[in-house]
Amino acid sequence: MMTARIHVTLKASVLDPQGSAVTKSLHALGYDEVADVRIGKYLEVKVNTTDRAVAEERITEMCEKLLANTVIEKYEFQLVEA
Amino acid sequence: MMTARIHVTLKASVLDPQGSAVTKSLHALGYDEVADVRIGKYLEVKVNTTDRAVAEERITEMCEKLLANTVIEKYEFQLVEA
Repeated sequence: MMTARIHVTLKASVLDPQGSAVTKSLHALGYDEVADVRIGKYLEVKVNTTDRAVAEERITEMCEKLLANTVIEKYEFQLVEA
Repeated sequence: MMTARIHVTLKASVLDPQGSAVTKSLHALGYDEVADVRIGKYLEVKVNTTDRAVAEERITEMCEKLLANTVIEKYEFQLVEA
């Protein structure tokens, strides 16, 4: 069993309205030191695989096909034994 | 300038319907090795602070007050220079 810790984030060139809203809310709460907020997704995917190379290939496929919208998002992941 | 990399995830005891939906979708795509998916948020918060201790305290406050719903979610963060 392995766990893939996947981060899916907007590409740097893509506007993040959700992050802007959170920035404004934090300012309204008095956190004036906040310069920028970017919001992404974090997924933990457990797979019944023991072969790390196979797992990496399959997780990459899953990201490309379903988990990330590669037009506007990028993804990265670490595989850990679990 | 520092960046807080914040993970907000559902507590282990809380059901994750979004994760279940993704698990089913991955199975439908033929990824039968997927045992479980949990989905959380990933935030990058840039703050104009140079004092690490102050930054940690303030980020913790932001998580408690706005960024996480501590009834059902937990959070953790790393502070990096950026």
